[in-house]
Amino acid sequence: MAKLILTTFDWVPEVPRGYVRDLRVRWALEEADLPYRVESVPFGDRKPAHFAHQPFGQVPWLTDGDISIFESGAILLHLGELSSALMPADPRGRSEAMEWVFAALNSVEMASLPWSILKFTGDTGDTPASKPLDDFLKIRLKHMEPVLAGREWLAGSFSVADILMADVLRLVDRFDGLAGYPACGDYVARATARPAFAKARADQMAHFAAADGKSQR
Amino acid sequence: MAKLILTTFDWVPEVPRGYVRDLRVRWALEEADLPYRVESVPFGDRKPAHFAHQPFGQVPWLTDGDISIFESGAILLHLGELSSALMPADPRGRSEAMEWVFAALNSVEMASLPWSILKFTGDTGDTPASKPLDDFLKIRLKHMEPVLAGREWLAGSFSVADILMADVLRLVDRFDGLAGYPACGDYVARATARPAFAKARADQMAHFAAADGKSQR
Repeated sequence: MAKLILTTFDWVPEVPRGYVRDLRVRWALEEADLPYRVESVPFGDRKPAHFAHQPFGQVPWLTDGDISIFESGAILLHLGELSSALMPADPRGRSEAMEWVFAALNSVEMASLPWSILKFTGDTGDTPASKPLDDFLKIRLKHMEPVLAGREWLAGSFSVADILMADVLRLVDRFDGLAGYPACGDYVARATARPAFAKARADQMAHFAAADGKSQR
Repeated sequence: MAKLILTTFDWVPEVPRGYVRDLRVRWALEEADLPYRVESVPFGDRKPAHFAHQPFGQVPWLTDGDISIFESGAILLHLGELSSALMPADPRGRSEAMEWVFAALNSVEMASLPWSILKFTGDTGDTPASKPLDDFLKIRLKHMEPVLAGREWLAGSFSVADILMADVLRLVDRFDGLAGYPACGDYVARATARPAFAKARADQMAHFAAADGKSQR
């Protein structure tokens, strides 16, 4: 029996499929070739037991023996401790991977997720409210562009930082936000061409599709 | 000579004073009683050497010997390795602190910072663009409320997770966003009553005030 258990929703609507954050964890687990199994919690009726594992009522969380971890960033750092395929072994490389993990989540995604919420509501990015948030993302991408033009992966070799950064930029790309940033676009293409990403994405799609026929909503 | 060097701007306008992210690092350094010194880079004219340390042209960064680290989250985890005043020693406590570090930055701040950008532009939170972002923050606070009503600190004892979460919520409080969330407000009051916070904040205010008389802008 697999020691690592990834928990995600039993079902989600069509739109977020392929983008639910369990994908980040699946991707890391596939890169590291770590055995795991997937469990589900109801998307519709979120119970106290769910909030006990994930205080915001979201997914994913990972259990490893008697430790339960939420937040994709924390889960990926935990998995990074289990495999050199996910985290450089030398102190400088580890430190670089660590800063880029946070840069992906707290510098880029902090700008890109609100932007994608606006895009999702059909906002054009030029209203008084949305212009500052559109600018917020653009300045981040402007600075990511030379970084990604100058290196294949963020921390020397492929690491959890790339899983997070590529997944963050992938959602921007979905709303055509990378059009003016070719190095960012190439990086997303490079990362998502990895077999572990393809496997993770296919598994997530299959997981949610399998629930479509059931009456759990 | 102090081994740890914190770099921040030489000067910032009045509005962000007391909220520039070097405060998070100062706070952690004071909690741990680690010796450090502060260096400055120009706020006005950001050079390539600045971007070499901080690819987004922001502050802070920390150097520890020959390692240079940006992103407040990564810096605080690095400092957490240096002092048990910042990070629990047991595996479960460390894991809890880690997930709350990411929750502060990637679940709460990802909602609160865009919200504060809107507030800063005078947005009332009820336009078609800003309503979804206002709701985004409120649902996070709604879930933080029972968490903070039930515990003094996030991961058993005070840790870097509290520095980050309290600093994130403090900015929400500045725009009166915690009015309906008394446990969140009490937590901010509890955290900012710590002498290390007071010292860090006073030092940041003095640092920027000292530059007011100079002609470096």
